[in-house]
Amino acid sequence: MKKILVINSGSSSIKFQLIKMPGEIVIAAGLVERIGLDNSAIHYKSKKMNISEQVKIANHEEGLKRIAALLMDTEKGAIANIEEIDAIGHRVVHGGKDFADTIVIDKDVKATIKRLFSLAPLHNPHNYTGIEVAEQVFPNATQIAVFDTAFHQTLPERAYRYAIPNKLLDENYIRVYGFHGTSHKYVAEKAQDFISKKKSKVITVHLGNGCSITAIKNGKSIDHSLGFAPVNGLIMGTRSGDIDQSIIFYMVNTLGYSLNDVSELLHKKSGMLGLTGYSDLREIEEAAANGNQQCQLALEMNAYRIKKYIGAYAAAMNGLDVIVFTAGIGENSSVLRRMVCQDMDYLGIELENYKNNVRSSENRIISKESSKVLVLVIPTNEELEIAKQSYQLLV
Amino acid sequence: MKKILVINSGSSSIKFQLIKMPGEIVIAAGLVERIGLDNSAIHYKSKKMNISEQVKIANHEEGLKRIAALLMDTEKGAIANIEEIDAIGHRVVHGGKDFADTIVIDKDVKATIKRLFSLAPLHNPHNYTGIEVAEQVFPNATQIAVFDTAFHQTLPERAYRYAIPNKLLDENYIRVYGFHGTSHKYVAEKAQDFISKKKSKVITVHLGNGCSITAIKNGKSIDHSLGFAPVNGLIMGTRSGDIDQSIIFYMVNTLGYSLNDVSELLHKKSGMLGLTGYSDLREIEEAAANGNQQCQLALEMNAYRIKKYIGAYAAAMNGLDVIVFTAGIGENSSVLRRMVCQDMDYLGIELENYKNNVRSSENRIISKESSKVLVLVIPTNEELEIAKQSYQLLV
Repeated sequence: MKKILVINSGSSSIKFQLIKMPGEIVIAAGLVERIGLDNSAIHYKSKKMNISEQVKIANHEEGLKRIAALLMDTEKGAIANIEEIDAIGHRVVHGGKDFADTIVIDKDVKATIKRLFSLAPLHNPHNYTGIEVAEQVFPNATQIAVFDTAFHQTLPERAYRYAIPNKLLDENYIRVYGFHGTSHKYVAEKAQDFISKKKSKVITVHLGNGCSITAIKNGKSIDHSLGFAPVNGLIMGTRSGDIDQSIIFYMVNTLGYSLNDVSELLHKKSGMLGLTGYSDLREIEEAAANGNQQCQLALEMNAYRIKKYIGAYAAAMNGLDVIVFTAGIGENSSVLRRMVCQDMDYLGIELENYKNNVRSSENRIISKESSKVLVLVIPTNEELEIAKQSYQLLV
Repeated sequence: MKKILVINSGSSSIKFQLIKMPGEIVIAAGLVERIGLDNSAIHYKSKKMNISEQVKIANHEEGLKRIAALLMDTEKGAIANIEEIDAIGHRVVHGGKDFADTIVIDKDVKATIKRLFSLAPLHNPHNYTGIEVAEQVFPNATQIAVFDTAFHQTLPERAYRYAIPNKLLDENYIRVYGFHGTSHKYVAEKAQDFISKKKSKVITVHLGNGCSITAIKNGKSIDHSLGFAPVNGLIMGTRSGDIDQSIIFYMVNTLGYSLNDVSELLHKKSGMLGLTGYSDLREIEEAAANGNQQCQLALEMNAYRIKKYIGAYAAAMNGLDVIVFTAGIGENSSVLRRMVCQDMDYLGIELENYKNNVRSSENRIISKESSKVLVLVIPTNEELEIAKQSYQLLV
């Protein structure tokens, strides 16, 4: 039995879960948010404690120390001392070409994660900070890195290469890496419980803050919508997803934007936000239901993009057995799921509307019994997946 | 009866055909090539003449004057005088948002074509030169512009919009325009001859120097792979087709490329050339057949991209009746057609290999009788389509 603290360290937040493995028992979980801002806060929940308080937290180190203090609280702590934590499982977004698997962190691993900053500037530096701080706060625990990109290392060359000069791959490592790998892997494995045959053609649709879609043939990722960095593919909250690259040249050369402004615009002002003024899908759905045409169109564009990727990946796998929807939007937006699945009877997709409309946190089937393609909703659990992979490395 | 001179004016070439309409009789056809270079040449063919000679041609004006002189040659000319030519049908690549139809060229039209230079810098300026020169050489003929983008003006909003801030569409007209419209329209109409039912779901695959693919539902273009400019989508001879846009930011910010170098690289050094060192598909096929792994992989990537677009457009139309291959590569590469169509039985595509392997300039079926999807090869004829559309405007 091992206790693993899973840490997902972002730019101004640390999400954590302490999980007992292999039993998959969550001992404590929570979030430090708005680190460095005036309204920073900590949320912590365990059997004996449920805290949610606004408190000044200056930096990641202070945040993680507070988490440690709560975990070891003399009266109501989840653990008696820091040595009880066997390992820290760190989410690291970009593993580049170097990491196809979960790995114990040493100096070399840290150096490589640092070298990959330029590939994932919004994520890897904060993941790195989380590691550095955790090494100080939990010096006896094994530090483990679980990479979002690792699951997609099975992509065949025809899927991971771009049609650009070979030296850009050979010397500069420009290729499809893919992201959200822990989520896609987790839900694809859960989906296996619903599939009788062993060989399967599965498409997992992860719709959260970031959105991506994976073609999984016989358990292996064979194609994926996010590429070199996590911005292309599906339409996201503030990210454009796929665009014609010539738009960038046009915006700079003809419209007079700076290249950085274009990057900022495509990352932070595009997607559903750029189309509607809202980045939260719930607001967009509500506005659309109240007759807002712009919001209705943005939903249609979003669903249409997903639909086309499903079609493309069905072609890549020569058929389709299962679609899995997951993550915040995938788990909760019955509207978007319906829009994606409608007019797809050429693949034999038949959604069961009353099942689709149920809100639940269970793994569940939302297609009709007669549907040739099984449509599932499976809540993702990246923390548990990180704990599982860390545990496998420990034992 | 009208005689229409069709002109396709490129950077260093003028392709032409004199066509008698509505009979669709080609009176003369040819090409001036390598204009301005030492080895410039003219090729001209009519009933009475077949000329192919290297001759110094300094500029487009001289080229078009030579064509006119050959057409009116006192002994063997195809026409007696210049007034016999009723109209000049000009291919113009980019019609922007302004031209949804073929149009008679006046000052305003010319000004708009000029304003669109920045949208198609490799094409529109040369098309424009062709118009200016033709106005001088054939002052009495009606000058008509036929736009590559016009056929795609039927795209619905969900297909032509990008998920970027609305003002970039409203103020800067950034959207999917689509290209090769005359070709896609021409072969889609020819395909109708093979289709018994009136409502049809057709995918036209244009594989030439540029490559693109169109979803055509009931005769109307509803989605298309080339977007704002003719560089994205399928893998082309020297153009990358789809890439993750973040590669551009990475190449400039981290690898130190200038933005213009990146643009040059994606337009002229990518695609099949970037992957293999060859830009001519025949050489690549030959090398692959002789065991060149790089060439084999490039062919697989090319076919895989087309396959995914076919899948995506089948999803967009909720099914598929017909695939049409056209243009140089589409008409001649049995290898690529086979690679695209194999392992696509989930859609009911069954290629008849011996039919696929026949070389022919006929419109033809290459799928099995049992195939649910009819697979056709239809040689494109953009010149005839331009003549047809010009004729419709004259009568």
